[in-house]
Amino acid sequence: MQDSIEQYMHRVGQNARKASRYLAGASTLDKNNALSAIYSALQNSEPQILAANQLDMTKGRERNLDSALLDRLELTPTRFKGMLQGLKDVISLVDPIGEITDLAYRPTGIQIGKMRVPLGVVGMIYESRPNVTLEAASLAIKSGNAIILRGGSEALESNQAIATAIQHGLKVAGMPEDTVQVINTTDRAAVGQLITLNEFVDVIVPRGGKSLIERITNEATIPVIKHLDGNCHIFVEAQADLHKALPIALNAKTHRYGVCNAMETLLVDEKVAEAFLPHIAELYAEKQVELRGCPDVQRILGASVKPATEEDWYTEYLGPILAVKIVSGIDEAIEHINKYGSHHTDAIITENFTLARKFLTQVDSSSVMVNASTRFADGFEYGLGAEIGISTDKIHARGPVGLEGLTSQKWIVLGDGQIRQ
Amino acid sequence: MQDSIEQYMHRVGQNARKASRYLAGASTLDKNNALSAIYSALQNSEPQILAANQLDMTKGRERNLDSALLDRLELTPTRFKGMLQGLKDVISLVDPIGEITDLAYRPTGIQIGKMRVPLGVVGMIYESRPNVTLEAASLAIKSGNAIILRGGSEALESNQAIATAIQHGLKVAGMPEDTVQVINTTDRAAVGQLITLNEFVDVIVPRGGKSLIERITNEATIPVIKHLDGNCHIFVEAQADLHKALPIALNAKTHRYGVCNAMETLLVDEKVAEAFLPHIAELYAEKQVELRGCPDVQRILGASVKPATEEDWYTEYLGPILAVKIVSGIDEAIEHINKYGSHHTDAIITENFTLARKFLTQVDSSSVMVNASTRFADGFEYGLGAEIGISTDKIHARGPVGLEGLTSQKWIVLGDGQIRQ
Repeated sequence: MQDSIEQYMHRVGQNARKASRYLAGASTLDKNNALSAIYSALQNSEPQILAANQLDMTKGRERNLDSALLDRLELTPTRFKGMLQGLKDVISLVDPIGEITDLAYRPTGIQIGKMRVPLGVVGMIYESRPNVTLEAASLAIKSGNAIILRGGSEALESNQAIATAIQHGLKVAGMPEDTVQVINTTDRAAVGQLITLNEFVDVIVPRGGKSLIERITNEATIPVIKHLDGNCHIFVEAQADLHKALPIALNAKTHRYGVCNAMETLLVDEKVAEAFLPHIAELYAEKQVELRGCPDVQRILGASVKPATEEDWYTEYLGPILAVKIVSGIDEAIEHINKYGSHHTDAIITENFTLARKFLTQVDSSSVMVNASTRFADGFEYGLGAEIGISTDKIHARGPVGLEGLTSQKWIVLGDGQIRQ
Repeated sequence: MQDSIEQYMHRVGQNARKASRYLAGASTLDKNNALSAIYSALQNSEPQILAANQLDMTKGRERNLDSALLDRLELTPTRFKGMLQGLKDVISLVDPIGEITDLAYRPTGIQIGKMRVPLGVVGMIYESRPNVTLEAASLAIKSGNAIILRGGSEALESNQAIATAIQHGLKVAGMPEDTVQVINTTDRAAVGQLITLNEFVDVIVPRGGKSLIERITNEATIPVIKHLDGNCHIFVEAQADLHKALPIALNAKTHRYGVCNAMETLLVDEKVAEAFLPHIAELYAEKQVELRGCPDVQRILGASVKPATEEDWYTEYLGPILAVKIVSGIDEAIEHINKYGSHHTDAIITENFTLARKFLTQVDSSSVMVNASTRFADGFEYGLGAEIGISTDKIHARGPVGLEGLTSQKWIVLGDGQIRQ
């Protein structure tokens, strides 16, 4: 059995690589036509896809999946419509492929530039939401990549039904069906194979819980675009305009709790702590946000604030809890963020030009902000048109990753007979 | 012993990370001052460094190292001067750090852009040439990174002597001495530790033989900037100007043999094979280049051409040997290159506009050329000012890698109180 999974995944990889060669030469029109054909195929298959999803839902209830997971799994007619709208949005995105930049002459007479090209083959590993199947497939096609999709076992029927429609659309448009392949086994060994298919797969994009991503990162021999944690900070500096600091600190914590760009620790300069903390604490109290503070915070806000432990500074609560610490100034704030943070998104609130520049330069995070809510760290808010994910790595893609994250640049050299002297 | 190497490398990593925080905030002037102080320190230590190198040379001769290796190991006064000139060149390079690009307003009123920042800590693993110690250290400092250097055991004394001078310079300039650390043990376990110090090291740059690089790539859990092979091709297309094809094919093979951007396989369109091959074969014969051809090549050039095996198409000879194949046209040429090549550098010789565009688009290599010698694939020829290495990977850095390869970009967001709606 182990052997046959290996053979199966090898074949999937080989087919994807072959399809990727075709895609590398496909024009924007070719790709948009394929996406439009997929759109029609999905429209025509709506009853089958929703029926397949109901099968997954029934099995999920039998397996006693928790209600949050079942909710993410369900495809309603409204969600189906949203999925199709997402596909339309991808069709209207600018094609990043083929763009030539920095083309310049060298003293030797050769002309050198960079051309944006697809990565080749993307391996995507994700959980529950079946709409990711279409989203990932459409972004891959738009950026000229083949994609291998490995969804969760709980969504197998839904994913296969969506895949059937996608492949029908590819066929109608004359694009290789292996452009999008959905793994048809729930055997976990398939994931182990996929993340080590170096010969055929160029990048792995995992989406899901921290343990899934950690496992993939540790075992993959292929580069992974991922983020593990969003432990985001806001530092209210001594020269902060408190009329800005209050709404931003409220928004960053309470706009949505379960998201990676929510603030998890609030740092306050000791010089404004007495003026700022009682006001923000009142706003948090209205939203029933639990505060965990350092001793100085407890002194100002009283015993209602629980003590923060060392562990709290590292924690991404993803809920209505906030760690609060008073710091002696910007140096302590930056040190705290670089030490305890997850290099995701951190903001300073200040009117001081020099300190804003210092914070921007020295905080080692994928997004660093001045006088804005951390909640803005998002591919759509950044104007990328789509979001593959948010990366806290420094290599390749960093921060919100759009279509460009699925591309690379190669050098091109144009000459008229030059040889090296 | 194993345990103490682990502790030693952990401390080295921790110190490097700490130094990297300092460097992230260092100005261009700070960095140039440090490089100038290192220049003076090296000038003053020339006798000690050359004496240390003589110790290595003596030990190398006792260990019967081969003469090519001993030649690479030796530091003569002339080479020492060249090393110092290289440092001067790095001082005059433009500082890539802090550059802000694409700063634009979004409809929400926030301003979004990208800021170029250091990667943090670079781990460099290399063999023999002690001048790499200075070259790598100076490029790291210029790009705001701390660096951990692990040279070969054969160059231990030389590397330590150079490191002593570098650290003296850093101290004089008031920069942390841990900015540049040279591993002081020849225990190979230190390499295994270095390439898995994910907490402290951001990128690994290996330089050396293929087996060293393969081992590092397989075992590293940190991203690696590397290339393994340079199996480069030139395709003489049917509409090639043979007055360009002949000098380019000669230059790409014979300008230097042992380099990664030398041509290893020549592909010739069947429509020009009879006109082209006898001429180029004559030029190669003058240079005593051995030809290995497909049956069609043998038919045209006669029995002096050895038959090429399947293995030949994969081989990087790094010497005066060339594989030659006649192909039916551009599609077969592209397929051959993408299958057998190493994604390093490949060129087409043609006057046909459409085929030139097709080759540029569909050949999946880090440098793709039209009517120019593959020998141009080089950081200095490309105008990068310095070369960290040549990468055949698609992620992060591709092709010749300059200072920018040791940097990343983070997002910056500037607002005046915006919150997410």
